[in-house]
This record gives sequence, C-alpha cells and structure tokens, in this order.
Amino acid sequence: MVESMRSVRTLGLLGTGVIGGGWAARALHFGMDVIAADVRPEMEDWIRGAVANAETALARLTSAPLPPKGTLTFTTDLEAMARRADFIQENIPEQLELKRRVLAEASRHAPADVVIASSTSGLMPSDLQRDMHSPQRFLVAHPFNPVYLLPLVELVGGRETSLRTLEAAHAFYTYIGMHPLRVRSEVPGHLTDRLQEALWREILHMVNDGVATTGELDESIVYGPGLRWAAMGTNLIYHLAGGETGMRHMLRQFGPCLKWPWTKLEAPELTEQLIDRMVEGTQAQAAGRSIRELERLRDDYLVAIQQVLRQFDIGAGSTLRALEERLYADSAAALGGADGDGAAVPGQPLKTLQAEVRPEWIDHNGRMAESRCVQVFGDAADALFRLAGINGADRSAGRAFFAVESHVIHHAPASALDSIFVTTQVLGVDDNGVHLFHSLKRRSDGRLIATGEQRYEYASASEGACAPIDTAVRARLDGIRAAHAKLRAPAQAGRHVVFPGT
Amino acid sequence: MVESMRSVRTLGLLGTGVIGGGWAARALHFGMDVIAADVRPEMEDWIRGAVANAETALARLTSAPLPPKGTLTFTTDLEAMARRADFIQENIPEQLELKRRVLAEASRHAPADVVIASSTSGLMPSDLQRDMHSPQRFLVAHPFNPVYLLPLVELVGGRETSLRTLEAAHAFYTYIGMHPLRVRSEVPGHLTDRLQEALWREILHMVNDGVATTGELDESIVYGPGLRWAAMGTNLIYHLAGGETGMRHMLRQFGPCLKWPWTKLEAPELTEQLIDRMVEGTQAQAAGRSIRELERLRDDYLVAIQQVLRQFDIGAGSTLRALEERLYADSAAALGGADGDGAAVPGQPLKTLQAEVRPEWIDHNGRMAESRCVQVFGDAADALFRLAGINGADRSAGRAFFAVESHVIHHAPASALDSIFVTTQVLGVDDNGVHLFHSLKRRSDGRLIATGEQRYEYASASEGACAPIDTAVRARLDGIRAAHAKLRAPAQAGRHVVFPGT
Repeated sequence: MVESMRSVRTLGLLGTGVIGGGWAARALHFGMDVIAADVRPEMEDWIRGAVANAETALARLTSAPLPPKGTLTFTTDLEAMARRADFIQENIPEQLELKRRVLAEASRHAPADVVIASSTSGLMPSDLQRDMHSPQRFLVAHPFNPVYLLPLVELVGGRETSLRTLEAAHAFYTYIGMHPLRVRSEVPGHLTDRLQEALWREILHMVNDGVATTGELDESIVYGPGLRWAAMGTNLIYHLAGGETGMRHMLRQFGPCLKWPWTKLEAPELTEQLIDRMVEGTQAQAAGRSIRELERLRDDYLVAIQQVLRQFDIGAGSTLRALEERLYADSAAALGGADGDGAAVPGQPLKTLQAEVRPEWIDHNGRMAESRCVQVFGDAADALFRLAGINGADRSAGRAFFAVESHVIHHAPASALDSIFVTTQVLGVDDNGVHLFHSLKRRSDGRLIATGEQRYEYASASEGACAPIDTAVRARLDGIRAAHAKLRAPAQAGRHVVFPGT
Repeated sequence: MVESMRSVRTLGLLGTGVIGGGWAARALHFGMDVIAADVRPEMEDWIRGAVANAETALARLTSAPLPPKGTLTFTTDLEAMARRADFIQENIPEQLELKRRVLAEASRHAPADVVIASSTSGLMPSDLQRDMHSPQRFLVAHPFNPVYLLPLVELVGGRETSLRTLEAAHAFYTYIGMHPLRVRSEVPGHLTDRLQEALWREILHMVNDGVATTGELDESIVYGPGLRWAAMGTNLIYHLAGGETGMRHMLRQFGPCLKWPWTKLEAPELTEQLIDRMVEGTQAQAAGRSIRELERLRDDYLVAIQQVLRQFDIGAGSTLRALEERLYADSAAALGGADGDGAAVPGQPLKTLQAEVRPEWIDHNGRMAESRCVQVFGDAADALFRLAGINGADRSAGRAFFAVESHVIHHAPASALDSIFVTTQVLGVDDNGVHLFHSLKRRSDGRLIATGEQRYEYASASEGACAPIDTAVRARLDGIRAAHAKLRAPAQAGRHVVFPGT
C-alpha cells in the first residue's frame, strides 16, 4: 500500500475504440496529456480522427477559460504506456479473461500509486482485480457514450479496492467535468445498464412479437418520458405524479398495476418495507422541496429543452416548430396580412410581440439579460417583416432583412415570468432598408424595460449583399410607415452611447 | 355510422384529476372551450387552480401568436357535458368496470359524430368500448404528465374503432400541439408504459435487494442515458454506438450480454429474423443519414441541453456549473487577477473571450443572431469585471455592473462552428461606471464580425440602484484604462444608428 495516489497529468489508455477515443478527447480538452496504447498500429489514425471529431462538440460545451490542450501520443507498447501514465483507463473488449490478463500485465509495470480503472459495462471489479499487482488501486469506472459529452461515470470498487483509490478516482473524473456516481454493491451491469437493459429487452420482445417497429418505440420515449429523464429520474418523477402525498400515494394508486402484464418483467412483492424504502428515498431526493416547487422546476426545464430541440428540429422540437408554423399562419390570416398594412392603426405603433420572460433569459445578476432584450427586438422585427409579406420561402431563397446596426437603452430590470410586450414604430423606409424603433414594456404596470433602435437592410442571394426591397414588401412597409408618420419621434432615437465621465 | 366527425370547438372532460387538469390547460391555451364534468363539486376549485398553475409554464412554451384563450366551465352533470362537447376525453380512475360503465353512459348522450377518447394508461380499447353506443367513435388516447407540456399521446383503436375516428383524433391532438403516435396493436400498457414499466420494475428489484437508493438510481439515468433520451430513443442511440455498421454491429457485439443477468428480465432469442427487424427498423429511422451525421446531431443537442440545464442548476447542468467555477478560478489564478491589471498589456486591448459559434446561435437567416453577438459582448464584459475583482460572492450580495446602453454594428456574418474571439478596450472609467468597446472577430482570417460599445453602471443592493464602484475594483479598472490610454479610439464608437434614408 502507498500513502496516497499520485496527481494526474498524464492519462494512459489501454484500448482505443469508441470509448477510448471519448476518454482521450475529454482528457485532452481539459488539459491532460494522453498516451494511448493499442496493439493495432492502425488505431493511431483512428483515435486522432475521433479526438478531432469530438473536439468540435466539446469546444462548444463551455466558454469558460480552458487550460492549454494536452498532447496525444500513441504507442503499441503497453509497458511503455504503463510506466509513464499517472492514471490508467482500460477500454478493451468486454471479455473477462482478456481484461483480467491485460489488467494484470499493466499492473506489473505501473507504480503502485497509479490508479487503474476499467470502463467495463457490466463485469465486476472483484473478478477483474484478481490477478493484479497492488489490486487496491483498481476500480471500475464505467462511462457512457459519448464519453466526451455525458457526465456520468459509475465508480465501483471490488473487495480489494481501497477507499483512497475511490477518492482519487472521484477527484480525477470531477476534474475532467464528470459526475462520479459511487455504486455501493457489485452487481452485473452496475446500476445504469441494469435499467437500460430492462428497457432494451422489453423493446426486443415487442419487436420480436411484431407489436411495434424500432422507430415507433423510440418515438414512445422521445416525445414523452425521455424529455423528463433529461433531468429527473423515474423515482422523482413518480413522486411528483403522486400529488401532494407523493410516492406513497403513487404506490397505492399504481401498486395493483405491478401484477398486470405491462412488461414481461415480473415485479417484486410490494411489501411495507419496500414501500418505506421508496418513500424514504424520494423524500431524501426532494430535500424539503414541496411537490409544487419540484413541479415548477420540472416544467421550467421541460419548456426550455423543447425550445432547444426546436432549434435542431428534432423530437419534441419538431412538434413545437410545426405548431408555431400553424399559429403564425392562423395569425397572419386573422390580421389580413395578405392585404398589406392590415394591422397598422394610425396613431399608434404596432404591437409586434407578446411573451413571458423565461427563467433561462435571466442572467447571473438576476435580471433579463441584455442579449435577451435584443433577441426580443429581433423577434419583434421578424413579426413586422412577416406582416409585410416576408415568409419562410423568401428566407430559404435568401431574401430577408438583416440587422446592420442597433442601439439599446436599458431603462429598468425585468424578472422571470414578467409578462412583456413590444411595440414597434417604423421610423423610415428607403430602397434598401428600414429604420425601426421598439419599446419593450411590462404588461402589469406598463413600465418601460428597454428601447431599441435598429437599421435593417434587405439582401437577396441573387443580387448580392444589399438589394432593393421587393416591390410588394416595400409597398406594405410604406403603408405602415405612413400610418406611423403622425407619431411623435421617440426621445431615445438618434442617440449614441452616452458616457458622462469621458 | 356518420359521414365524418365534427370539428372541435369545445372539449368535454370526464374526470378532473391531474390528467384532466392537464388536458384542460392545454386545450384552453390553444383556444378551445372546455367543459369539465366531475361528480365531486369540490373539484371545480381544484381544476381551476391546476389550469392557472399549468398556464405559467404554457405561457412560455412559444412566443408565436395565440388565439384568445378558451373558457372553462364546470359541471357535476355528465349528461349536460356529453350533450354540449364536440370531443370527449375520459380521465377517471384506472378500473375497467368503472370506465366501461361511465363511457357507456357518456355514449348514450353524445351524438355519434363526437369522438370519445380514454386517457387510460394500460387498458385496451376493445375492452372499454364493449358497451358503448356508436363504439366506432371510441379510441384510447394516452397522454403523459404533465399533459400540458409533453407532446406525446398514444392513439390506440379497438376492434370497433373506425379509421375516421383515428384520423379526427390525430387532427385534434395535433391542433393542440401534440405528437400523436399511432399504436398498431392492442397490448396491455400500449408502447410507452411497457418500456417505462420494465425500467420501473427493475428499479423496485434493486431497491428491494438493497443494491441502491432511489436517488442513486435516478442519478444513474439523469447524468447519462436520460440526456440522450430527450431526443433519440434507445434504438437509434444503439445504432450510433455500433459504429459505421450501426445496429447490426451493435447486436453482434452486445448480443451475448442478452444472456447475462444484467436485469431480471429475460431477453427473447436473438434470431436472424429479430436481428433483421432491428436493423431494418433503425435503417428506416436513420433515413439515409450517415452515422457521423447522426452523431453530430446527437452531440449538438447534448451540448445545448446541458447548457439549458445549467441555467436551472439541475442534473448535468449542475455538473457543468461546478466545472465552470473551477475553470474560472484556475484562470483567474493563472492571470494573477488578485494583483490587479495582470492581463492588461500596454498597446493592445484585452482578449476577453474565445468561443465557437454554436449551432443554436444561428437564426433563421442562417447567420449568428444579433442577440448572440450581444450575449458574447456581455460575456466579454463579465470576463473583464471578473479580472477587476468582481466575483460570484459580490453578485450574490447585489454588487455588480449592469448594462445601461449599448450600440452594435454588424460588419459581417458569422456561421456555425466559426472560431471567434473578442477583444475589449476600456474607453473610460468614472465613479459609477465604465465605457467599453468590444470587437468580435473570426480567428481563421481575423475578419471583423461586429463591434459593440457599452456603458455599464455599478450598483450595490445596500446603496441603491447606482453606487460608487468599490475602491479595489476601481483601482484595477483604472489600471487597465491607463494601459489602454495609448490605443487609437475606435472609429465605431460615439456613433448613433445611421439611416441614410431619413
């Protein structure tokens, strides 16, 4: 036994498949050097490609400052790697005898203060560490694909594993941005893969029985429970579904279903002891938060995730996109948008947007972020352009208005859940662009939150960067401009950034 | 049989628990009137409260224009509801005899062109429609909690159900923003609950066997597979894990594990027919997209979801937050931030930010959105303030800089994955604020994307809205300002929005 495990600057990898490549990318990104060992020399090109691919996603994970990237070296010599690494991660095929032999060999070359971890999906650490030198420095550390993006890593010690090893591993994985989950019992499949495997085998049964296709079964998760699972597990979700008495009520209500043939997996007997464990467990997870409070948190992330997915037009995001297209079309039809300036009322600016301040719009100072004010002004301008006849087909064809300059004054803070609206005044229209003025206000008291002045220019893919506005669109904009001509010019327009001190 | 089902303006609800309340909120939000029927008069207050609660989340789902909200009425008279509704949704307790009786009664009062749907989690439509009048207009339409946010609804017809009924139901649920999933076979638990139930029973076994707590089991999903399931199901995810040959390779590699005790659920025999079905199904899902292409999509949403969750400090978002705090602290230590203007180099502006343009920053015109430029300038200003000694504790205590005015010029478009950086020049410092000028450039060619001029003011919760800058912070800002004094004044500063046409 050694006093403590060494601090890690160089990660050694045993095996370089999809999992090894993921480990390499994550460690390099957070500043570790990596030595990858594989008996197949052709894997050097492969792992360099995998790291480069992963890096395009990793580079976007955070804009926090990063240390310089680590250096990747490749070797076919296991021993050379084991002598130089400060921490070794094994990722070779899922065969007990093979893993046991390779781990034992690595342990003969690696000093005893070097942690050796296995990425095994389901083999047990006591079985793997049997033939090792200094087996106390061995553990299972099971990651998930893509390793470079998913934070979960299950840590499982075997009979010989020391607490010091588990602590050193915990610190290392945390350093490279992961969430170590300590698994207290050695069971085949650890925790996560047991749950995934139950779901997977039920899928195989249903496809085998001809009940559904793989696509239908994926949809059955992606548009429903999958959205919840992104941030709350089944237990906490069922605790919420139970209403004010939570999990206890839920088990009373759905307990009988455990006898029904809802899956080919038989449930355990729902004893009082099991009920107590489920209730105590979920109470601990709730940590004093009420069902209502947890529901709000759940609803917040469900809304925000759907908005993110909309941007990628995938799953629930596609549903939301289709809904919005229908709503915009209905609204345009109701406003008589096709007839031109149907919504322009002489004597008042257009109401171009109505929304609620979303929790994710709040910055670390607790107020609606400046960038979100600009986003809202952009949406208001879009609403105006839509009214003037610009539609999705125009955009796809490269005909659209683009912001070239803007000036924003922040008058008062807005908070999460404030109802807000934007009015827009057309200050000018010329051959190539429009000059807009927006006021963002709170609905409850009419308070002015921010004003924005913008110049947008029209561009057409066929005519180059800046082009004359389409005639029909121009006519509608002129109509709105004429309706706005009598309005008072806003005091905030035509200003530059004022700095009293200079 | 009637020619066609009627168009829906009024939704009738049978039963008003959590599910009934969710249906009411969703339908009202998208402009339907709702008549809720429940034999317990006290449920009127309950459902009105549930609708109000749901509305706070629903209001944020989309900023697209909505029709006027519908009106909610409540009655204890099932018959009155059934005579007036255009579409009836049943949500009473999960008991076959009770549901059968109530559905039969509703069917005696509702005209034959009114669809009647049951929200049952697992009962089969042929069993439920047995005693109904006009049973052809009945189907199961199984939603998920919270019904007002999750788009999934499983549609299952019974032996008597007409195709016309399924089509009318499909149109109705789509109209209120949902994703109808047609289930082609009547099986207990339909599709989704079979998969959820397999996972749930495995959880109960593990808690029962003392292997893990409910909290540990939830973590085992939330930090790993749960993030993936938000937009891709197990089948497509495993197709990706199989490398270039997809599902076929995956089944070859992990097929043997189906015999291992990774769950208490036994798998079906992995016959050639089953393998072919799994491969054909996932090929259809991939729809011609390569593994690499699907991986990029998966990585994009995994990054974006983690960033959303960070804002709520939940699950993988908490992990990301903790990582960023560590990175900021390390970076400040490396820059010698505690010694003041350690990073200010006379003769050049500060490099305050380096990032990659994220796909979700791209607007519908295909370029980095204006609001994202402003967000990046805000992050750059934050980096400067952090360097000047403002930290998280200051913010929690209400001491921070807030943007009051800004002017942005967009010089050139930026595209997804462009590497960008920001330099910041301190134009002025006075007792209450700073005057900053940022340049956002592309790294590959140094091209100027946008410039931003900002005034920030300092505020302290204890001293009111605007306060003198903390002395130590002021000294550091003055130091940076002095280092920047020799720099040329930027041509874009001091300008107002220019509009040639007015």
